[in-house]
Amino acid sequence: MTIIDIINKKRNRKQLTREEIEFAVNGYLDGSVKDYQMSSLLMAIVLNGMTARETIDLTDIMIKSGDVLDLSKIDGLIVDKHSTGGVGDKVTLVLGPLLASLGIKIAKMSGRGLGHTGGTIDKLESIEGFNTKLTEKKFIKQVNDINIALVGQTADLVPADKKIYALRDVTGTVESLPLIASSIMSKKIASGADIIMIDVKVGNGALMKNIDSAKALAKLMVRIGKAYRKPTICLITNMEEPLGNAVGNSLEVKEAIDTLQGNGPSDLLEVVITLCSIIIGAVNKMPNNEAKNLLFKQLNNGEAYKKFEELVKAQGGKINNIKISDKVFSIKSDREGYINNIDALHIGEIAKKIGAGRNTLEDKIDYEVGLVLSKKVGDYVEKEEELVKVYLKDKDISISEILECFTIEEELKSNPKLILDIIK
Amino acid sequence: MTIIDIINKKRNRKQLTREEIEFAVNGYLDGSVKDYQMSSLLMAIVLNGMTARETIDLTDIMIKSGDVLDLSKIDGLIVDKHSTGGVGDKVTLVLGPLLASLGIKIAKMSGRGLGHTGGTIDKLESIEGFNTKLTEKKFIKQVNDINIALVGQTADLVPADKKIYALRDVTGTVESLPLIASSIMSKKIASGADIIMIDVKVGNGALMKNIDSAKALAKLMVRIGKAYRKPTICLITNMEEPLGNAVGNSLEVKEAIDTLQGNGPSDLLEVVITLCSIIIGAVNKMPNNEAKNLLFKQLNNGEAYKKFEELVKAQGGKINNIKISDKVFSIKSDREGYINNIDALHIGEIAKKIGAGRNTLEDKIDYEVGLVLSKKVGDYVEKEEELVKVYLKDKDISISEILECFTIEEELKSNPKLILDIIK
Repeated sequence: MTIIDIINKKRNRKQLTREEIEFAVNGYLDGSVKDYQMSSLLMAIVLNGMTARETIDLTDIMIKSGDVLDLSKIDGLIVDKHSTGGVGDKVTLVLGPLLASLGIKIAKMSGRGLGHTGGTIDKLESIEGFNTKLTEKKFIKQVNDINIALVGQTADLVPADKKIYALRDVTGTVESLPLIASSIMSKKIASGADIIMIDVKVGNGALMKNIDSAKALAKLMVRIGKAYRKPTICLITNMEEPLGNAVGNSLEVKEAIDTLQGNGPSDLLEVVITLCSIIIGAVNKMPNNEAKNLLFKQLNNGEAYKKFEELVKAQGGKINNIKISDKVFSIKSDREGYINNIDALHIGEIAKKIGAGRNTLEDKIDYEVGLVLSKKVGDYVEKEEELVKVYLKDKDISISEILECFTIEEELKSNPKLILDIIK
Repeated sequence: MTIIDIINKKRNRKQLTREEIEFAVNGYLDGSVKDYQMSSLLMAIVLNGMTARETIDLTDIMIKSGDVLDLSKIDGLIVDKHSTGGVGDKVTLVLGPLLASLGIKIAKMSGRGLGHTGGTIDKLESIEGFNTKLTEKKFIKQVNDINIALVGQTADLVPADKKIYALRDVTGTVESLPLIASSIMSKKIASGADIIMIDVKVGNGALMKNIDSAKALAKLMVRIGKAYRKPTICLITNMEEPLGNAVGNSLEVKEAIDTLQGNGPSDLLEVVITLCSIIIGAVNKMPNNEAKNLLFKQLNNGEAYKKFEELVKAQGGKINNIKISDKVFSIKSDREGYINNIDALHIGEIAKKIGAGRNTLEDKIDYEVGLVLSKKVGDYVEKEEELVKVYLKDKDISISEILECFTIEEELKSNPKLILDIIK
């Protein structure tokens, strides 16, 4: 068996055996398969696909490339939640404490942001002192003590995915359902949770550009979850405009706090409540309406926010010290009309440009910068009325580039649905 | 423009602009585009193809990556001939002197063998003292003096192809019509000849496995030739069994000499005469039958062989000193019947195993080893009658592996045609 035979086989649209996928992945990890051979194989996979069997084998081989977290010392069902990445997506910051306040265990490893999408770990680290690196022992103890811990991924978790993902990022081989599904699911399964909840974002600000590919990805991930007897539930949500109003690390933490205190933007709230009610349904067999009522109660009676405070304190953060830049600019509309679109991808790119995101994992982030939308899709805006506030620090951005993100028209277009499908 | 944008574009089945192809190829040469990015792009090209326009642009960019030979100081029309590579293919060794003996100029740069196919330069170097490295000045002078010079490719000729080909070889991206066509044609055009003759081999011993892909490749190369106003003629010939009887460097030189003296095997003779008569037709406007008669005359009256002697002498070779191993084994048939197939690919691999070929360009070749077929496809063989002679030296081979190359059956199958098509 040689890597060239394996590449040729996939190039000729044949199914690879488990042994062949193992040869490629493990060979890539130990250096016997070269970068340029792996990228050629990855492009063949992107274009010729993989069967479900190949995808499950790939996932399994990646999981076994590193450590698998043993969370058996945590009492009760453990929930993990993942988002395929969007702009302004601070769902985890709200959902985690909310569920934990109801006794559900949240043991979650999160990633950093890359490109135009943010990452939960960056957002948490914008809180002064917040420590995202816990030992496995401390991580487990904290979940047992206060029901929740949010940490960064360790280097030993799915190293094969880490190495392959870095290569995909620079070789145009990101967009492939089997590669995306195996990358996400290998990390989720290695992280040891019992129930996996995935928010699959669709739209121009997301990895999945249309509903069909999002559904196909969701089905594939549910199927992988089944192979491991881990109930996996996918919510497909719209990511044409940013989620909520805030984009940027500290600004998003602030919005998450508002939401945990019952004052969140309606779209963010809808995603959080839908995800949480499904999880409660899965864990406690509670009817959906009852679950939703319970969740709203937790937001309004302060319990959810109290849990967030506990979480921040347990991981060393100072919640009263969230810094936001005071160089604020109000961007006003140059015309009147209905806002028919706010380009999430473009907003994400602007946020990155002004310092809220990074191009490579080595770049430093400025936590204090970002944008806060004053208007959302469907709103009417007067000429000279504020569209968005921009929080700047060292880097600059042109007003016209910001205005380009907004499509303002005379007629109101039909408002797109936020929650497009649930697949389980 | 980034290389990732370019990879994504080709992955999405879009046509690349000339500037994009230039960015990729020149970036790869200067190191700003990495191996793993180029291999990903190459796999996308293999699977999604290239239009004729893209292929011509790629060819042109590769040509301009290095030196272009100026043969304007050679009087008369200059012919170059290329083979896509086969087993036992010593056509150039016969065709070159034969045409040169009729006053046609042959200024040819040849390659070395790799894998199961041989290379003209290796065959020539099996002649003691034969120098395949001439300066450009000496090369031109020799063609003006004796009508023929056969040399190796210089490092400065189409360096982009050299670097890309080496990468394709180890990344499963060899089999692509636009990549093969641009690789061959860039070298032919940079070599400066006026008329390009290409022998496209088809069959299990060749790069092209079926007639349709061989025809498509031929048409693409003719089209590229037209873009440079260089008449390009492709002969499509069968490579199911080895061409002629001899496989191995010195043995093939010996067979070429026999053929130049009028005693060649009929299949080799058929390919040589067909190619040469087309060239004479193109250069001298001579009717085909007349051309063939002239060619046979040159083989039988000693003129063609005399030209070969001149060529060898001019490049420092000692023609009376061709060494062949004296460790000869006669392999006899274990059954009687008609020979319906001789597996050219397998014979080529055996020749490589016993030392006549190389796996990497750094391997050393043993010029004295090889095989000589005593029977060809269509022949009847008695039990215990000789099928093939094997010339060994340091390396060994099993008799059963050699016998496996021969398909011997009771019924004679219809004999495949040798010359399948002419495309110009």
